[in-house]
Amino acid sequence: MLINDYYSQENHGPYELFDLGDFELESGGTIRSCQLAYTTFGKLNPNKDNAILMTTWYSGTSKIMEQVYVGQGRAIDPDKYFVIIINQIGNGLSTSPHNTPAPFGMAAFPHVRIGDDVRAQHKLLTEKFGLDSLALVVGGSMGAQQTWEWAVRYPEMVKRAAPIAGTAKNTPHDFLYTKTLNEAITSDPAWDGGWYKEPHAVHRGLRRHADLWSVMGYSTEMFKQELWRDLGFSSLEDFYVGFTQGYFLPMDPNNLLCLAWKWQRGDVSRITGGDLEAALSRITAKMFVMPIDADMFFPPQDCEDHQRMVANSEFRVINSHWGHLGLFGMDPKYAEQVDHHLNELLAIEV
Amino acid sequence: MLINDYYSQENHGPYELFDLGDFELESGGTIRSCQLAYTTFGKLNPNKDNAILMTTWYSGTSKIMEQVYVGQGRAIDPDKYFVIIINQIGNGLSTSPHNTPAPFGMAAFPHVRIGDDVRAQHKLLTEKFGLDSLALVVGGSMGAQQTWEWAVRYPEMVKRAAPIAGTAKNTPHDFLYTKTLNEAITSDPAWDGGWYKEPHAVHRGLRRHADLWSVMGYSTEMFKQELWRDLGFSSLEDFYVGFTQGYFLPMDPNNLLCLAWKWQRGDVSRITGGDLEAALSRITAKMFVMPIDADMFFPPQDCEDHQRMVANSEFRVINSHWGHLGLFGMDPKYAEQVDHHLNELLAIEV
Repeated sequence: MLINDYYSQENHGPYELFDLGDFELESGGTIRSCQLAYTTFGKLNPNKDNAILMTTWYSGTSKIMEQVYVGQGRAIDPDKYFVIIINQIGNGLSTSPHNTPAPFGMAAFPHVRIGDDVRAQHKLLTEKFGLDSLALVVGGSMGAQQTWEWAVRYPEMVKRAAPIAGTAKNTPHDFLYTKTLNEAITSDPAWDGGWYKEPHAVHRGLRRHADLWSVMGYSTEMFKQELWRDLGFSSLEDFYVGFTQGYFLPMDPNNLLCLAWKWQRGDVSRITGGDLEAALSRITAKMFVMPIDADMFFPPQDCEDHQRMVANSEFRVINSHWGHLGLFGMDPKYAEQVDHHLNELLAIEV
Repeated sequence: MLINDYYSQENHGPYELFDLGDFELESGGTIRSCQLAYTTFGKLNPNKDNAILMTTWYSGTSKIMEQVYVGQGRAIDPDKYFVIIINQIGNGLSTSPHNTPAPFGMAAFPHVRIGDDVRAQHKLLTEKFGLDSLALVVGGSMGAQQTWEWAVRYPEMVKRAAPIAGTAKNTPHDFLYTKTLNEAITSDPAWDGGWYKEPHAVHRGLRRHADLWSVMGYSTEMFKQELWRDLGFSSLEDFYVGFTQGYFLPMDPNNLLCLAWKWQRGDVSRITGGDLEAALSRITAKMFVMPIDADMFFPPQDCEDHQRMVANSEFRVINSHWGHLGLFGMDPKYAEQVDHHLNELLAIEV
């Protein structure tokens, strides 16, 4: 275990912990006393049919989901819905490489899959809150991968689903992109096979990792128009150092690698023997598939490939020059579009 | 100097050398006895008006330009044209970091700009061949940067121009992409500030550098359709190791860094005080601007931004799932489209 103040209640809370006990993983191994960090807003109604599950992306926590997507007057309105945001395993708040004691922490943390997260989240929602229905599951990027997986695994429970900027089965191109993210970290000699002694030892690798996000995470148009000025940055370098590098630098490298392994292998067809059409035909939820037009690694075409295999689905493209990381909500028009689509989705009787 | 058999007459020849003497560079410094490697096909006619200049891209040499673009019955037909392919400074055949003796070789090689190459090429064409007119200048990627620069610098000489998959002024997004290429190399401890003792010491960094090309150089559609099978590869890994890593591994890291520095700063408006419209309004050539539709770092939109500022120009998009590296000609339909456009361009009276 390495103490890393970044993953604190002060930065990301308030959140609560749910103890899953010993949790067996799909690819082998067991997480002992596996903890899911979660936070809730609003109240569960007596019929228990107003619950919204929100999932988290690579590097993201419940805090940014709250800040960007939840609010009075928003589509995800705590005055109307009981909103539960669950942090995925490995994200630093839930059980993760950095907060797991020896012998299983750090580089020895077992491989976790999207399916593990969804099973763990299902346990939390059913055992802790007694839910048997979700009005909506929504998440972006890896959160979209979890959303797809929820709709496939538990079709009877998911009434509506909105995967934003993410696919049901990861593409080989996206796999390769994530490989370069990992290599930026693991090529830093300070990474030392995952056994760094100090939480911020791998800062050079994390900076290079962040630079790959600067290339693939936004868009050429965002840079041409210098939209980073809207966030208060004064030059290209001021932005990619101050924003992108600054965002990733405090994080734990093994946590990111754990998430990346999971991301690379996101695939709802694992439960149907690799038959993607069979997996997606299990979905009964009303689904809006919502890619971001300028996304370079979950591009609209890849999302549409999967949307077309879902019976009760619509393809809703969000426009933003901010590309994939538009998920963070820098673009005010992004939140407007998301709310527009989610309001429409939530108004559909199912 | 480091002997590197990759840059040999056997691999890339036959080529000849033109000695520029001491060549002063725009950003300071002088290359002593600067050599341009070039090759020619066909015969110069008595009017000296059938010359075509071809330029080279990052990592490319005259050999691949010949193989992919020149041939009887092709648009660039040596039976009709006098074709001169000039290797850019730093590409390993012309004067480059790896073949320059101390004290100026390797990490001490001076910074070279696109404008330096174009001035050097102008000297070769005028002094060696007595040319005052070029029927066509054509090149891809960094070769397109040189093509743009030729049309702006020497408008009286360039009758037609076809920049393929390249811009007149590099975008900030492309600058950042190239930065990550550089960092993949320079982060390898074996790079040692550019003073590696053995030509292939930096193989780990070169592999990571190649992986970034695998992410940005092709397209998600190429990978989804597994078009690499057409080249004889048996798996995703077999392709990105066997093709992309295998291509870059034998090259000299300092040569690539020299080219990347030049690429990042490509900008025809340097001679008009930064006024891009003024620079592009100097162009009198008939110009076809030819991006590749799936290109991720010289995307069509960025090329069109510049095409629109050129009076006598057309925007001709090439369709290929191979993306930017479609330049290498893996896609048979790519060569067809290039020939179609170039035939049309060459038939226009100017």
